[in-house]
Amino acid sequence: MTIIDGKAFALKLREKIAGAVRDIKSSCNIQPALAVVLVGEDPASQVYVRNKGIATEKAGMRSIEHKLAADASEDDVVSLVKKLNADEEVDGILVQLPLPDHISSERVINEIHPDKDVDGLTEANAGRLILGKTGLVPCTPQGSVMLAKSVRDNLSGLNAVVVGRSILVGKPLAMLLLAENCTVTMAHSRTKNLDEVCREADILCAAVGRPRMVEGRWVKEGATVIDVGINRIEEDGKTRLIGDVDFDSAKERAGAITPVPGGVGPMTIACLLRNTVIAAARRRGLGAVEV
Amino acid sequence: MTIIDGKAFALKLREKIAGAVRDIKSSCNIQPALAVVLVGEDPASQVYVRNKGIATEKAGMRSIEHKLAADASEDDVVSLVKKLNADEEVDGILVQLPLPDHISSERVINEIHPDKDVDGLTEANAGRLILGKTGLVPCTPQGSVMLAKSVRDNLSGLNAVVVGRSILVGKPLAMLLLAENCTVTMAHSRTKNLDEVCREADILCAAVGRPRMVEGRWVKEGATVIDVGINRIEEDGKTRLIGDVDFDSAKERAGAITPVPGGVGPMTIACLLRNTVIAAARRRGLGAVEV
Repeated sequence: MTIIDGKAFALKLREKIAGAVRDIKSSCNIQPALAVVLVGEDPASQVYVRNKGIATEKAGMRSIEHKLAADASEDDVVSLVKKLNADEEVDGILVQLPLPDHISSERVINEIHPDKDVDGLTEANAGRLILGKTGLVPCTPQGSVMLAKSVRDNLSGLNAVVVGRSILVGKPLAMLLLAENCTVTMAHSRTKNLDEVCREADILCAAVGRPRMVEGRWVKEGATVIDVGINRIEEDGKTRLIGDVDFDSAKERAGAITPVPGGVGPMTIACLLRNTVIAAARRRGLGAVEV
Repeated sequence: MTIIDGKAFALKLREKIAGAVRDIKSSCNIQPALAVVLVGEDPASQVYVRNKGIATEKAGMRSIEHKLAADASEDDVVSLVKKLNADEEVDGILVQLPLPDHISSERVINEIHPDKDVDGLTEANAGRLILGKTGLVPCTPQGSVMLAKSVRDNLSGLNAVVVGRSILVGKPLAMLLLAENCTVTMAHSRTKNLDEVCREADILCAAVGRPRMVEGRWVKEGATVIDVGINRIEEDGKTRLIGDVDFDSAKERAGAITPVPGGVGPMTIACLLRNTVIAAARRRGLGAVEV
């Protein structure tokens, strides 16, 4: 049984990205840039934005932070996004969610130019994903597929079951697994006999946000288990992060499994950096980046 | 066992649409209009366009045909689409496919304003479908779901299997069934043990374009079988239209099944008319149309 080391995989990916950034710099004298927009003072969002900035610079890219006050209007945020769309030096735009309640994140997100939409959240990129066109893919599902492929040479013809149908993870993950030629089942809260459905999975992905919902006995012998959940619970007087899969029982049956933390989690930011360098190369006509 | 009469269902739907059109006319003095763009002289396309025009007028809407010569440039077609986008009187725009080889249908389609894209083929509408937003849905998958719902009050929790993953039918159909709270499996040419996968289906949809590929013994007892295939074959010295499902053996096990012809086929044009009246009502701020 393999415990899939997402942390190590993400580190290696980030090194590859840094290499691609160096190549772009030396050959074209261009430094890819990621602009992050933060509205308000939410402490968790501030931490995320800071960490993204550090990771962007570590990869050799330019990090641009735009902070707006909590009472900024929707039009203020949209204007900023439009300015960043028009800025030739900006390759990726990320609007940190959640936005304050008085601002429609749907409107703001959809104003991001699809070619700079490194979170893959616009209608255009969602559409490109289902239509099989070149676009920017949401980071967490992309990272999940990379980890599955790290232990399976070829996903073609495998049964994949995705539990959870969120627009951020479940649905794009299903589309990515379909593009890998898996037979894909989308399961969710209305699914009957979820345990039986899961037991058919060669690749079992859990993305529901319910701690330890997927039990070990739901796992087919030898299956690859990708646990996207990150749930904060109080247990034995301590705060712990656990996944949507009951790791201890699942690892007895899985062929490979991602732990929480240290599985899919670290892939999200790595895939954000990856999208940024891919966006930079495409926008600037440098051809495909292999990372 | 019920043979689902798609022809009768489509006729009733078209009557409802005509009623909605009458309501819009009498209350707002507006006649919804569908513009169809035909490039070149392909005989089949000419027939389709003529039939769509007749159906549009029968529903009380205005049909506008734009015919361009086979040697029209891509820019000519794009210019026309942009003109139709800007035309306040035009509610729906349909570009008849296939376009001549020298024209990128991808570019042309994507120029259609999403709110007038009554075929539901633009990136924006594909994105809205996966994101669960209000948009315009491709006609054949929409018609398929309507027929399934005509024999099943509630699809929630049912196992749906979609065989075929085209961007025109398979993938949007999977998304629509997911929105109905089905557990959805997307199967295709790389699927292993396709017969077993199909036998799990309460709703079995075939959209592969291979005559009689789905055998009767693949059908679960009592399943609802939706056959999207329309294949022209020569048999016993005659030309016949048959589906992707072997109807004669499948009807012995199915609870309900669509025939070919007379099943999903007539729903496509009905759903095009439906999209046109929906688009008209939305664009013109008349609220939702229930059809």
